[in-house]
Amino acid sequence: MSDECIFCKIVKGEIPSYKLYEDDDVISFLDIGPANKGHALVVSKLHYELLTEMPSELLQKMIIVVQKIAAAVMKATKADGFNVLNNNKKAAGQLVAHVHFHVVPRFSDDGLKLVWPNKEYKEKEIEEYMDKIKSVL
Amino acid sequence: MSDECIFCKIVKGEIPSYKLYEDDDVISFLDIGPANKGHALVVSKLHYELLTEMPSELLQKMIIVVQKIAAAVMKATKADGFNVLNNNKKAAGQLVAHVHFHVVPRFSDDGLKLVWPNKEYKEKEIEEYMDKIKSVL
Repeated sequence: MSDECIFCKIVKGEIPSYKLYEDDDVISFLDIGPANKGHALVVSKLHYELLTEMPSELLQKMIIVVQKIAAAVMKATKADGFNVLNNNKKAAGQLVAHVHFHVVPRFSDDGLKLVWPNKEYKEKEIEEYMDKIKSVL
Repeated sequence: MSDECIFCKIVKGEIPSYKLYEDDDVISFLDIGPANKGHALVVSKLHYELLTEMPSELLQKMIIVVQKIAAAVMKATKADGFNVLNNNKKAAGQLVAHVHFHVVPRFSDDGLKLVWPNKEYKEKEIEEYMDKIKSVL
């Protein structure tokens, strides 16, 4: 737990939330500044900053809650699709330094942009990236 | 398997890929049109369109590969952060109808936008959404 962390405060019940689900390890509640209405967050109760820092077992518990919440959000909002998004570090748009998944219902006409322009690898560069990543895997 | 699915063809080796990782259930390879260089995909070998359609055990295997790939991509690219993104249905930006996670290395100055304007709930509306989602959970 971190004294300053807003998600830790929600976990402890010190800050109210629009709670959707809770078990021993994971909690889910509505994002109060949603990308679309019905936008939910799935949060581990224990405080870790990054996905890569979590114990695998806890991450596996989280993703099953993500799956359940996504199905319920789809049904409840009659959405046309959904995104699951997890941001790690400020450079990636992480606003709360406590690992969480966004579950965002999407509608064909919602105007949200989640499309990045493609970059291009130079000749042989993609092989170099492949080799570099494999070497530290 | 779907005859038309490009990821099924990669799984079967009918289309080449810049493969990073493979086990009995999951494969990972570089996105050839990356948001940033080092952008990887994590794909289940069995064909399911949506995250919500997959057996939970397979999803749990996938997310552990996501975790490993993310750590390796971070190390190899010396990125400042990373996003994990899973799009479901065209309305959500899903381009290949075969469930997959994007692992995108991010850099403080990369100029990618993944920020959505917040919508606002009207009075009592957030409680209504909470109740609706909980009722189908």
